[in-house]
Amino acid sequence: GDAMVDHHRALRQGFPEVIFGESKSVGQIERIMAALAARGNNILVTRIDEAKALAVREAFPQARHHAEARCLTLEQKPVEPRGRGTVLVVSAGTSDLPVASEALVTLRMLGNAAEHLYDVGVAGIHRLLARREALFAARVVIVVAGMEGALPSVVGGLVNCPVIAVPTSVGYGASFGGIAALLGMLNSCAAGVTVVNIDNGFGAAVAASMINRE
Amino acid sequence: GDAMVDHHRALRQGFPEVIFGESKSVGQIERIMAALAARGNNILVTRIDEAKALAVREAFPQARHHAEARCLTLEQKPVEPRGRGTVLVVSAGTSDLPVASEALVTLRMLGNAAEHLYDVGVAGIHRLLARREALFAARVVIVVAGMEGALPSVVGGLVNCPVIAVPTSVGYGASFGGIAALLGMLNSCAAGVTVVNIDNGFGAAVAASMINRE
Amino acid sequence: GDAMVDHHRALRQGFPEVIFGESKSVGQIERIMAALAARGNNILVTRIDEAKALAVREAFPQARHHAEARCLTLEQKPVEPRGRGTVLVVSAGTSDLPVASEALVTLRMLGNAAEHLYDVGVAGIHRLLARREALFAARVVIVVAGMEGALPSVVGGLVNCPVIAVPTSVGYGASFGGIAALLGMLNSCAAGVTVVNIDNGFGAAVAASMINRE
Amino acid sequence: GDAMVDHHRALRQGFPEVIFGESKSVGQIERIMAALAARGNNILVTRIDEAKALAVREAFPQARHHAEARCLTLEQKPVEPRGRGTVLVVSAGTSDLPVASEALVTLRMLGNAAEHLYDVGVAGIHRLLARREALFAARVVIVVAGMEGALPSVVGGLVNCPVIAVPTSVGYGASFGGIAALLGMLNSCAAGVTVVNIDNGFGAAVAASMINRE
Amino acid sequence: GDAMVDHHRALRQGFPEVIFGESKSVGQIERIMAALAARGNNILVTRIDEAKALAVREAFPQARHHAEARCLTLEQKPVEPRGRGTVLVVSAGTSDLPVASEALVTLRMLGNAAEHLYDVGVAGIHRLLARREALFAARVVIVVAGMEGALPSVVGGLVNCPVIAVPTSVGYGASFGGIAALLGMLNSCAAGVTVVNIDNGFGAAVAASMINRE
Amino acid sequence: GDAMVDHHRALRQGFPEVIFGESKSVGQIERIMAALAARGNNILVTRIDEAKALAVREAFPQARHHAEARCLTLEQKPVEPRGRGTVLVVSAGTSDLPVASEALVTLRMLGNAAEHLYDVGVAGIHRLLARREALFAARVVIVVAGMEGALPSVVGGLVNCPVIAVPTSVGYGASFGGIAALLGMLNSCAAGVTVVNIDNGFGAAVAASMINRE
Amino acid sequence: GDAMVDHHRALRQGFPEVIFGESKSVGQIERIMAALAARGNNILVTRIDEAKALAVREAFPQARHHAEARCLTLEQKPVEPRGRGTVLVVSAGTSDLPVASEALVTLRMLGNAAEHLYDVGVAGIHRLLARREALFAARVVIVVAGMEGALPSVVGGLVNCPVIAVPTSVGYGASFGGIAALLGMLNSCAAGVTVVNIDNGFGAAVAASMINRE
Amino acid sequence: GDAMVDHHRALRQGFPEVIFGESKSVGQIERIMAALAARGNNILVTRIDEAKALAVREAFPQARHHAEARCLTLEQKPVEPRGRGTVLVVSAGTSDLPVASEALVTLRMLGNAAEHLYDVGVAGIHRLLARREALFAARVVIVVAGMEGALPSVVGGLVNCPVIAVPTSVGYGASFGGIAALLGMLNSCAAGVTVVNIDNGFGAAVAASMINRE
Ligand SMILES: Nc1ncnc2c1ncn2[C@@H]1O[C@H](COP(=O)(O)O)[C@@H](O)[C@H]1O
Ligand SMILES: Nc1ncnc2c1ncn2[C@@H]1O[C@H](COP(=O)(O)O)[C@@H](O)[C@H]1O
Ligand SMILES: Nc1ncnc2c1ncn2[C@@H]1O[C@H](COP(=O)(O)O)[C@@H](O)[C@H]1O
Ligand SMILES: Nc1ncnc2c1ncn2[C@@H]1O[C@H](COP(=O)(O)O)[C@@H](O)[C@H]1O
Ligand SMILES: [Mg+2]
Ligand SMILES: [Mg+2]
Ligand SMILES: [Mg+2]
Ligand SMILES: [Mg+2]
Ligand SMILES: [Mg+2]
Ligand SMILES: [Mg+2]
Ligand SMILES: [Mg+2]
Ligand SMILES: [Mg+2]
Repeated sequence: GDAMVDHHRALRQGFPEVIFGESKSVGQIERIMAALAARGNNILVTRIDEAKALAVREAFPQARHHAEARCLTLEQKPVEPRGRGTVLVVSAGTSDLPVASEALVTLRMLGNAAEHLYDVGVAGIHRLLARREALFAARVVIVVAGMEGALPSVVGGLVNCPVIAVPTSVGYGASFGGIAALLGMLNSCAAGVTVVNIDNGFGAAVAASMINRE
Repeated sequence: GDAMVDHHRALRQGFPEVIFGESKSVGQIERIMAALAARGNNILVTRIDEAKALAVREAFPQARHHAEARCLTLEQKPVEPRGRGTVLVVSAGTSDLPVASEALVTLRMLGNAAEHLYDVGVAGIHRLLARREALFAARVVIVVAGMEGALPSVVGGLVNCPVIAVPTSVGYGASFGGIAALLGMLNSCAAGVTVVNIDNGFGAAVAASMINRE
Repeated sequence: GDAMVDHHRALRQGFPEVIFGESKSVGQIERIMAALAARGNNILVTRIDEAKALAVREAFPQARHHAEARCLTLEQKPVEPRGRGTVLVVSAGTSDLPVASEALVTLRMLGNAAEHLYDVGVAGIHRLLARREALFAARVVIVVAGMEGALPSVVGGLVNCPVIAVPTSVGYGASFGGIAALLGMLNSCAAGVTVVNIDNGFGAAVAASMINRE
Repeated sequence: GDAMVDHHRALRQGFPEVIFGESKSVGQIERIMAALAARGNNILVTRIDEAKALAVREAFPQARHHAEARCLTLEQKPVEPRGRGTVLVVSAGTSDLPVASEALVTLRMLGNAAEHLYDVGVAGIHRLLARREALFAARVVIVVAGMEGALPSVVGGLVNCPVIAVPTSVGYGASFGGIAALLGMLNSCAAGVTVVNIDNGFGAAVAASMINRE
Repeated sequence: GDAMVDHHRALRQGFPEVIFGESKSVGQIERIMAALAARGNNILVTRIDEAKALAVREAFPQARHHAEARCLTLEQKPVEPRGRGTVLVVSAGTSDLPVASEALVTLRMLGNAAEHLYDVGVAGIHRLLARREALFAARVVIVVAGMEGALPSVVGGLVNCPVIAVPTSVGYGASFGGIAALLGMLNSCAAGVTVVNIDNGFGAAVAASMINRE
Repeated sequence: GDAMVDHHRALRQGFPEVIFGESKSVGQIERIMAALAARGNNILVTRIDEAKALAVREAFPQARHHAEARCLTLEQKPVEPRGRGTVLVVSAGTSDLPVASEALVTLRMLGNAAEHLYDVGVAGIHRLLARREALFAARVVIVVAGMEGALPSVVGGLVNCPVIAVPTSVGYGASFGGIAALLGMLNSCAAGVTVVNIDNGFGAAVAASMINRE
Repeated sequence: GDAMVDHHRALRQGFPEVIFGESKSVGQIERIMAALAARGNNILVTRIDEAKALAVREAFPQARHHAEARCLTLEQKPVEPRGRGTVLVVSAGTSDLPVASEALVTLRMLGNAAEHLYDVGVAGIHRLLARREALFAARVVIVVAGMEGALPSVVGGLVNCPVIAVPTSVGYGASFGGIAALLGMLNSCAAGVTVVNIDNGFGAAVAASMINRE
Repeated sequence: GDAMVDHHRALRQGFPEVIFGESKSVGQIERIMAALAARGNNILVTRIDEAKALAVREAFPQARHHAEARCLTLEQKPVEPRGRGTVLVVSAGTSDLPVASEALVTLRMLGNAAEHLYDVGVAGIHRLLARREALFAARVVIVVAGMEGALPSVVGGLVNCPVIAVPTSVGYGASFGGIAALLGMLNSCAAGVTVVNIDNGFGAAVAASMINRE
C-alpha cells in the first residue's frame, strides 16, 4: 500500500496529494486514494483515462471527473485561495485542450485564480491581440502549444510577467511528438520564457502556482 | 575547366550563371568565371568570403562584391526585369542578415523587384504589424529566421501569397545549428508556407523568382 | 461549437472552409460542418478515416467521400476556377498515393486544374522521361515521394517552374518515418524546389494554389 | 545603428538595455553602446570575449568588465533595487561558473539581491545539504549544471520556491554539448522546476527577476 | 529445437540456463525448457508476460512465476550461494519496479544475497539518506531509475563500492523511452558508476554477480 | 613499429599494404612505411594531407602523391592486373572529387581497370543518360554523392550490375555532414545497391575489387 | 490494375517478378499476381503476413508459403541456376531468422546456390570459428545481425570475399530499432563490408545475386 | 583555491587526489596541486595537454608526465598495492591508445596490477585468441574500442569476469564521435558487460579498481 504512494511527487504542506495515474491499475489508484483520503487531504489524480476514472468513481462517488483534463479530484475540504493574481492559460488548437485543461484543474486545486484563453494561434495573430487585456492582467501566463511552438515567443513579447511554455505532442511528420515545439520554445527570443516537459500541464501549473503565491 | 562548373546551381536560359564559391580556391573561381564570361553571360558567385572576393576582383575589377551577402556579381549586360510583382524578404535579427542579403542579391540578378523588411521578430510583433502594407503589396514573401523559426507562421497568417521560409543557423544551445528553426517552419500552421534548407537564401530566391515570373 | 472551428487553419475569402479531421470525433466534425455549411460555404475535411467518413455521410448525404485521399468534400456551390495553369502532382510508388490524392482533392476544391502523373520513380527514370510533355506543360509541380526522396531533384532538373516536394512516411528501417525523404528533399541540388512537412499533401496544394493564382 | 539593437534581448522600461555581443564586432558594439548611452540608460553587454571587452573599454573607460561572466556593464545611473527576496544561483563544477556568473551579473543589473552557492554537486550531496539555510531563504533558485543535469531535481526536492534550471554545455562524450543535462532537467521529477536553453544564464536571470519583482 | 537455445545469452558453468522470452511463443519456450531441464539445470526465463507464463506453467507446474519481474524460474536443484557480500538494488518510482524485480530474481538465481531499497528518489533525498547503512553494507549497488536518471550519481557519491546504473524507459515527452536517463547515467559525475542498456535489469544482475563472486 | 600497422585496413596476400594516415605524424608514417617497404610490398597511404605527403616524399622520393585523392603510393613491383571487368566510379559535384579519387587510386593499386564518370548529377539527368554505354560496360559501379544522395538510385535503375554507394560529407544545413546522403542511399528503391560509410572511398574500392576479381 | 505493379522494383530479364506485400491488401496482391502470372513469369511476394498469405493461397493454390521468411513464391517454370558459387547467409540470434530467411528465399528464386549458417554470434566466437570451411567456401557472404551488429566485422576479417551486412531491428532500449546495428556495420573495420537498410534481407539477396552471377 | 578542487573526481581515503585538467589554465592547475600536495597526498592530473604539462612540471619537477595518456602524476608516497588480481586493458587500434593509457595510469595510481593487450581488433580475431591466457588470468577486463565497438562482446564471450567497455571517439562519418561504438557496447549480447562514457578511460579504471579491491 504505502509503497504505491508516489512520495517523489509529493507537494508541500497545505497542497493536495497528487497521484500520477498513468501506469497504475484501478485497484492501485483506489488503494492509494483510500490511504491519502484517510489523512483528510484533498486529492488530485492526473493522467487517468475515461474507463479508469469511471471505475474509481464507483469507490469514491464524491470524486469529480474532469474528462478533457484526464483528471479526477476529491475535495474533502474547501481549496484555500492563495496567490497574488491570476494565472492565465493560453492555448492554440483544439488538440492542445487536454494539456491546457490539466494545467487549469491543477491550478485550481492549488488555490489559484485561473483563466483560459483558447483558440489563439500565431497564424491568426489578431485573435491573440484582441485579448490583450486578459494577457496584461495576468501574474503568470502558461502557454500551451504544439506544432511549431511559436506562441510563447509572441506572448512573451507582449507581456511583462513570467511565461511558462508547455510543448504538446500534437502534430504529425516533422513535429516528432512535440520535439519541434519543445525546441522552438527553448530557443524563444522573448525574455522571461521558461519551459517544461512535453505535455506536462501539471508541472507548468505547479511552477506557476509557486510563482503566484503570496 | 568544364568539370568545375556547378551544374547543380545551373539555372535556365537568360538567367545568370551561378558559381558556388564555398569549397573552391581563388584559382578555380577565376578559371570558371573566365570560361563563363567568355559566353557573355552575367555571373553570380555565392558563398565567397572577404579574402577570396578581394583576390578575384583583382582579375575581374568590374565585378561587384556584396560583402554582407558573401556574393560577387559580374554584370556583362543589363539584368532584364522579369516578374509580375515584388518579392519581399523579411528578416528578424542582425545575424540573419547575411542569408537575407544572399537572397536579395540573387533575386535582383534574376530580374526581380526585391525589397527588404528587417529587424522584425515575433517577440516584438508590433514592429511587424506596423509594416503590414509592405507585406500585403508583395507577390511572394521570403522569411529568414533563426532561433525558434516562428516568423513565417505569423507572416503566413497575415498575407495571402506564397511564403518561402529560410531557417538560419543562428543561435546557440538547443538551436542545433538551425534544426530548431527548420522544424518550426516545417510544422508551420499557416497555409502556403514552404521551406528550403538551412541558410539557403539562394535557393529561396530562385524559387521565389520562378513563382514571380510572368 | 465555435471553439471547435480550426481558425488557425482557415484559408482566405472565396476558398472552402477546411476541417482537419484527424483527432476529431464524428460528433465534433458534424457540429463544425453544420456551422460552416450554414454560411453557404464549400467544405473540405481532411484526414478522415473510412469509418468516420461513412458516419458523417449519414448526416450529410450530399457530401462526397474520397477514400484514397482520406477526404470528404461538401460542394454547396460550384468551385470557381482560378489559376493560370495546371498543377501537376507526380508520385512514385503505390504507397504515396494517399498523400498525392489529398493534394489532388485539395487542389480541385481550391479551383485549380490538376493532373496526376503516377508510378514514376527515380529507379526507372525512362517512365518519367516518357512523360516530359506533361511536366513541361505544368505551371507548378508537386512531387510526392518516400524512401530516398530523390524524385524532386530529378523533376526539378527537368522543369523550369516551381517544384513543391512532399516527403511521405512510406518505407521501413532507416527511412525513419519520412525523415530520410525529408532530408533528401531539403538538400535537393535542383533550383526551385521547396519542401513541406512529411505527408502534408494538403499544405503543398495550398501553396501550389497560391502560386498558380491569376 | 538602430538595426543593430538586439530587440530579442530587449527588456522593459526601467531595465537596462542589453546587447548580445557574440557575433558583433568591436565597432558594432561601440556604435550601439553610444546610441543607447545617449538615452541615459544602463547597458549590459553579454557574450563578449576578453579581447573585445578590452577594446570596447578603451572607448567606454567607465564600463566594467566581468571577465568570468563574459559581460560588460555600463552604469550611468544607480541600479534601482526591486524584488521581494533573494535570488540564489547554485552551481556545481568550475566549468559551470561562466554561466552562473552571467546569471549573477544580469540579476544585479536588473535590481535583484543575488547570492551564489558554488561547488555543490549531486555526487557530494552533503556539501549541498550543509547549505540548506541559504536554499530555504531564497525567493527563487537558479540551478546551473552540466554533465547529467541532476542538481535541479535535488534542489527542487528541498525547496518550496520556483527553481529555474540552466543546462550547460560542459562535459564530453555523451554529454552532447549540453543535451544530456537539458533532457535530465526537462524530466525532473521535482515539482516547480522549469528550464531554459543550454548556457542561457541571461535568460534564467530575466525570468527569475520577473518572478522576484514586487 | 537446438536452434532455439539462445547461445548468445548463455552464462557459465554452474549458473542457470537463461531463456529470453520476449519474441518466443509458448511452444518455443516449452521446447527449450524441456531440452534444458533434461540436463538437470536450473532455468530462468526473462521477459515473459502474464499470459505466456500461465500457459508455460501448465507444462511445468513446479516452475515459479514472478509476475512483477516478468520472469519464470525452475529450480531443479538448490541455488548454490556464491558471492562475498550483498547486492543492493535501489529504485525510485513504482514504474521502475519491474526492472528492479528482474534484477532481483536474476541475482538470486545466480546465488547472490540480494536486498531491495525502493521508493527513494532524488527529489526526496532524505528518504535515501535515511537508508545509509543499507547502502554502506553492500558489496555492489544496482540503481534502477527513469526520468532524469540522477539517482546513480547521488548513490555513487555516498558509497565506496561499484555502482551499476540501469536506465528505465519510464517517463513521457522528452524522456524519449529512457534516453534521457541513459545519457544522465553515462555522464554521471560520481566515480565508479557503469551503465547497462535501457531496462536491462538482467544484464546489471549478471555483471553485479560477477563482481560479487568470491 | 609493428603496433602502428593499421590492421583494420589490412588486406590480403598479394595486395598492397595500407596505412591510414589521418591521425599519424610524419615520423610515424615514415617508420611504418620503412618496415613495410622492407618486405618488398607495394604501399598505399590514405587520408594524408598535402604537408605530410610532401614531408614523407623527402624520405621516399620514389613515392607518388595523388593530391586530390589525399593518397601516397609506393610501387616497388608492378601492380598485377586482376579483375574480370571495369570498375566505374561515378561522381556528381566537384566537392565529391576527393572521395571519388580515393576510390580510383585504391582500385588501381588493387589491380583493377577503373574509369571515372564525373560531373553527372540527378538534377541534370541528361548528362548521365548521355554516358549510358560507359555505365552498361561496367562490372561494378561505385557512385559517390553528397547532398540528397539520389544518384545511386538512378544509376542502379539503369545498370544490371552491383552498385556501391558512397555518401559524402559535402553540403550544408540539413545535409548534416553526410547523414542525408547516407539515409537516401540506404533507402534506395533500386535493387542491387549497397552502402559504405560516409566519405569511405577506400572501403568502396576494396569491396568493388573483391566483386570484380576473377 | 496496372498502376499497382511496382515497376520501380522490377528486376531484370529472366528474374522473377517481385511484389512488396507490406501495405497491399489481399485483393491488390491477387490482382497483381494474376497480371504477372499471365506473362508466364515466376513471382516472389515479400513482406506478406500469415493471414494474407493464407488468403492469397486460396486463389493461387500452387503458390508456396515460406512462413518464417514472410514470403510467398509462385514457380511457373523451373528456376534457372545462375551464379558462380555459393551465397552463404550467416545469422546470430533466433530473432534474426525472419530476415535471414527472406534473404534465402530471394537468393533461391534468383537462381543461386544458397546456404545458411545460423546460431553463430560474436559472444560465442568458437561456434563461428568451427564453421570456417563453410565461410571460406562462399563466393559472397550475407551477415544478418541485430543488437550491436558486430558479426560482419568478425566474418569480414575471416573471409576474402564480399560481405553484405543486414542490420535487423531486433533488440530493445538503445538498439533503437536497428540503428545501433546499422551504425556498427557502417563503421566496420573489416575491408569488403557493405551495408543495406535495416531488415532488408531482400535487398541483400539481390545485391549478392548480382555479385555471384557468371 | 578550494573552489577549484574537482570534487566530482574526488576519490576515497587513501586514494590519490584527482584534477580534471581539461578546461583549467596552468595557473589553476598549479594552485590546486600546491594545495593538495601540502596535505601529503599523491596527485593525478588527467586530460592535460603537452604544453600545459611541460609548464606545470617547471613548478613541480618531481611530477611525471605520461604523454600518451595525457596525464601528470605526482607521487609523494609509494602507491599502496591493493586489489585481488590483475586488471587487463584491451585495445584495438592505435587511435584508442590515449584512452587505454589514461586507464592504465589511473589503475596504477590506484594501486592495481595492470596489464595492456593492444593491437587486437575484431577484424583480426586470431590476434585476440592468441592472447587467451592473458584474458583468462584477469580479475577485471577494460575494453577500449572505437568504430563499431564490437570488441567488448567478443571479449565478454570469452572471459568469465566483469568487462567494462569504453567507447572512443575514434572514427569518421557514421561513427558520430563515438556514438556508434557506445550504442554497440550498450547492446552487447555478452553477459557481464557494462559501459562508461565515450573516451572515459579514467572512469573505467576507477570502477575496475573498486571491483578489484580486496
Ligand atoms: N501529469 C503529470 N505530469 C507530471 N508529473 C505529474 C503529473 N501528475 C502528477 N505528477 C507528479 O506525480 C506525483 C505523484 O506521482 P505518483 O506518486 O506516481 O502518483 C505528484 O506529486 C506530482 O509531482
Ligand atoms: N491534411 C492536413 N494537413 C495539414 N493541415 C491541414 C490538413 N487539413 C487541414 N489542414 C489545416 O487545418 C485547418 C483546419 O484545421 P482544424 O481547425 O483543426 O480542422 C485548415 O484551415 C488547414 O489549414
Ligand atoms: N531480460 C533480459 N535482458 C537482456 N538479456 C537477457 C534477458 N534475459 C535473458 N537475457 C540473455 O538472454 C540469454 C538467453 O537468450 P535467448 O537464448 O534468446 O533465450 C541469456 O543467456 C541472457 O544472456
Ligand atoms: N522485402 C523487401 N524489401 C525491400 N524491397 C523489396 C522487398 N520486397 C520487394 N522489394 C522491392 O519491391 C519491388 C516490388 O515492389 P512493389 O511494386 O511495391 O510490389 C521489387 O521489385 C523489389 O525491388
Ligand atoms: Mg515578456
Ligand atoms: Mg497566408
Ligand atoms: Mg528546375
Ligand atoms: Mg520543490
Ligand atoms: Mg562512490
Ligand atoms: Mg540495377
Ligand atoms: Mg575480409
Ligand atoms: Mg563473459
